[in-house]
Amino acid sequence: MAKPKKTPRPKAQMPKGFRDYFGAEVTQRTEMLRAIAGVYHRYGFDVLESSGVETVEALGKFLPDVDRPNEGVFAWQEDAEADKPGDWLALRYDLTAPLARVYAQHQNDLPKPYRRYAMGPVWRNEKPGPGRFRQFYQCDADTVGASSVAADAEICAMLADCLEEVGIARGDYVVRVNNRKVLNGVMEVAGVLDPENPSTFAQERGIVLRAIDKLDRLGFDGVRALLTDGRKDESGDFTEGAGLSDAQAGVIMGFMKAKRPNGPETVSRLRELVAGSPIGTHGVSELETIAGLLAAGGYGSDRIEIDPSVVRGLGYYTGPVFEAELTFEIQDEKGRTRNFGSVAGGGRYDDLVKRFTGQEVPATGVSIGVDRLLAALHAKGRMERKETGPVVVTVMDRDRMADYQAMVAELRQAGIRAEVYLGNPKNFGNQLKYADTRNSPIAVIEGGDEKEKGVIQIKDLILGAKIAESATLEEWKDRPSQYEVPRAQLVEKTQEILAQHGLFGGDTGQ
Amino acid sequence: MAKPKKTPRPKAQMPKGFRDYFGAEVTQRTEMLRAIAGVYHRYGFDVLESSGVETVEALGKFLPDVDRPNEGVFAWQEDAEADKPGDWLALRYDLTAPLARVYAQHQNDLPKPYRRYAMGPVWRNEKPGPGRFRQFYQCDADTVGASSVAADAEICAMLADCLEEVGIARGDYVVRVNNRKVLNGVMEVAGVLDPENPSTFAQERGIVLRAIDKLDRLGFDGVRALLTDGRKDESGDFTEGAGLSDAQAGVIMGFMKAKRPNGPETVSRLRELVAGSPIGTHGVSELETIAGLLAAGGYGSDRIEIDPSVVRGLGYYTGPVFEAELTFEIQDEKGRTRNFGSVAGGGRYDDLVKRFTGQEVPATGVSIGVDRLLAALHAKGRMERKETGPVVVTVMDRDRMADYQAMVAELRQAGIRAEVYLGNPKNFGNQLKYADTRNSPIAVIEGGDEKEKGVIQIKDLILGAKIAESATLEEWKDRPSQYEVPRAQLVEKTQEILAQHGLFGGDTGQ
Repeated sequence: MAKPKKTPRPKAQMPKGFRDYFGAEVTQRTEMLRAIAGVYHRYGFDVLESSGVETVEALGKFLPDVDRPNEGVFAWQEDAEADKPGDWLALRYDLTAPLARVYAQHQNDLPKPYRRYAMGPVWRNEKPGPGRFRQFYQCDADTVGASSVAADAEICAMLADCLEEVGIARGDYVVRVNNRKVLNGVMEVAGVLDPENPSTFAQERGIVLRAIDKLDRLGFDGVRALLTDGRKDESGDFTEGAGLSDAQAGVIMGFMKAKRPNGPETVSRLRELVAGSPIGTHGVSELETIAGLLAAGGYGSDRIEIDPSVVRGLGYYTGPVFEAELTFEIQDEKGRTRNFGSVAGGGRYDDLVKRFTGQEVPATGVSIGVDRLLAALHAKGRMERKETGPVVVTVMDRDRMADYQAMVAELRQAGIRAEVYLGNPKNFGNQLKYADTRNSPIAVIEGGDEKEKGVIQIKDLILGAKIAESATLEEWKDRPSQYEVPRAQLVEKTQEILAQHGLFGGDTGQ
Repeated sequence: MAKPKKTPRPKAQMPKGFRDYFGAEVTQRTEMLRAIAGVYHRYGFDVLESSGVETVEALGKFLPDVDRPNEGVFAWQEDAEADKPGDWLALRYDLTAPLARVYAQHQNDLPKPYRRYAMGPVWRNEKPGPGRFRQFYQCDADTVGASSVAADAEICAMLADCLEEVGIARGDYVVRVNNRKVLNGVMEVAGVLDPENPSTFAQERGIVLRAIDKLDRLGFDGVRALLTDGRKDESGDFTEGAGLSDAQAGVIMGFMKAKRPNGPETVSRLRELVAGSPIGTHGVSELETIAGLLAAGGYGSDRIEIDPSVVRGLGYYTGPVFEAELTFEIQDEKGRTRNFGSVAGGGRYDDLVKRFTGQEVPATGVSIGVDRLLAALHAKGRMERKETGPVVVTVMDRDRMADYQAMVAELRQAGIRAEVYLGNPKNFGNQLKYADTRNSPIAVIEGGDEKEKGVIQIKDLILGAKIAESATLEEWKDRPSQYEVPRAQLVEKTQEILAQHGLFGGDTGQ
């Protein structure tokens, strides 16, 4: 018989742009999601979880950068059934498009307005880059079916509460608010929008929108180039412009620079800029109402401000838009000091449900980028990188596994995280090395001699590490970090040592 | 200009086999995952989160039913880059295959053994059916790098602890343990396996494995048919058999029926059945060791038993396999009484990492089906279907939105879930209907008269509903469930009412 052909070994790699998260990276995110969910819930929002997979048809095309492969989503076609070609399915790229589908599908069973929050991974078929992944978490809250800007104001207040809840101090963030209607008014004034015929200039407006959204990266000159003749970047690549005249571009640039030292002054300046445009004037009034409601609720200009440079890249926004920015500085990968930047954003999107139902359903919401927020807290040194490991019961005699298992069972019943070493026990050094890799606070040892005497050795690994760092060899020889106690005192002594290190009761968290 | 062609409205539907989860369905699952994670963590396992997307190459092909479209996974090809064709990517179908990839990729940075837990959605490209979805949650714990069956025993104990932690009482479940090596021994005895030449009979063995795994559904006769000439099901569809002789099938059937009233007797019976097969004899010894370790740890036959009919469908198991079954009866969709069945399973898979590295890396683990567990708790009536909604502050005067927002802000600061009604406030009846839909405990009312008098009305909606159910109209007229209190007593009175209904402090969970 011929030898079966060997298949080559598969590569142990995740696809490009994806990554694995270990230990504290996951638990810290879980805790952050839990904290934010708590705030959302307190504000009356109910949780919704839709699946990661939707039909391409339901998701629609709203991603900002149209020049990406497959228009930014991971998609595939279902197998054909009978004579019917299979549906195209895709991974959701955000949590808003699925919400619109859910609302349209279940509206008869949902309260009106429907306040929902959702958290989970979303996927973007983008070119991966440093710190830019193709799967990441979003954590959204939206109110569907409320046309009042009180709904927008509430979302802004809630966003501020969320940031403080997860440990961003007041003063370290600002929620910046703008209104797409004001931008539309400005475009009307500049002659790039005809309210009677909104489909005219659609392409130009798209470019204008994306250009303003890139202000952070490109600066005013870069944006001006994109508004007019186009822009060549450092690599020599050319991005086409919107073809606006200098005068038209000037109007748009004036809008982006309309921010004044305080809300009322910014509002007056915006009112001047949109003079003659009913939609623009209405937008400015909405901004005024939002700022008023927020101020009345105690959310003043130290936390929330009107900022005309905020537009948000997504195509579906129709009214107020907002963005939370962290205002403290960090060092980037290249050691340069820069502002941390945006960690959350959202706005009003009144037409997203209409796609499905044909009926106007007003909606507004926010999305918090938890991965960015976690990165911010790490950059500020407000989070531990590593979590405490379990108490490790070492194996001196592999025939007495049941004894060791009984020890960890006792420890666990007392709420202490603990395990028996399950590797090859032959080399005792490997067992201590293992405990070290695990960041274990304590190792327990029961050899044959100890067993006979009815005692165990308890090694305080945290103290041991400290002594090893600072003490001379002589001191170390005394092994002051290792205690011989009766077997019956296993739990008691372990608790005592953990308490000394501030690991109360040994329950080292989730 | 020609009118742009109207695109038809997208259908508001999730793809077939997927579903949306609302409110309590999500929070209960989140709480269950948290509870299980707590047990896993206490046992020393560290959390790992890999992405939902892997390369098809890394995932491999281990799903039980080979007759599914695309071999059971959702897959697509990446865009080509330069001259290189794009990789095939797929959604993970379980959490074990990604773990093998992670371990092979990161082994130099991971502790040895590596104990990890993971929880999250997995996807199967299966034909959807009632209660059978194409995305569902798994919640796994695995030990990689430990060859000792102490690792398997520990996983079984932990599984029992998890079930009790989430509310399955002792006596309502059993963890059944078997060993693939015993099955291999039986096959060797039956002449369907040649240890010197394991690739011979591979196809027959696959059929045997899957047939035994279907014992629950097909019964002994159905399995026997699959072992021999094949089986015609009720619809007339024919499934091919393994082609075993009656004598061979008899040996296998004997194995499935080898369970005896207690562990030691089952072990002796198995020892007889595999007599002459070294691998089978070794497998029986492993079973004996596992049972011994578990019994020493207090996990006796009331919780864990040896059961030769457990084989698990997945192709990658190489040693001990286990399954947790809920033993209580429920009514199925058709009103028939049946056992609830399996909610978790796992086993040892020593070759999964070897696929990548070429080196033996022993591993064992368990996967808990949380959706099944939740369904079980619901079937037992141990979980509420609906959660308590927020306190709803109604809007009597839309110009005083800031007043109402101030009320909810006060309530939230006291930890009470609260919201302002954000729909059209014109019809007050709709506002109360909304509060009812939300399952709200309390509605707050402040009209113009109240505002002038400095009071508010607080409606106890839970009491109101009770009265409406049982009282006559006369009694209802007295509105005993509505209180007029000074505005300053909003929080105090709300807390008092919530406490009366056992909703302490108003913090209604999550």
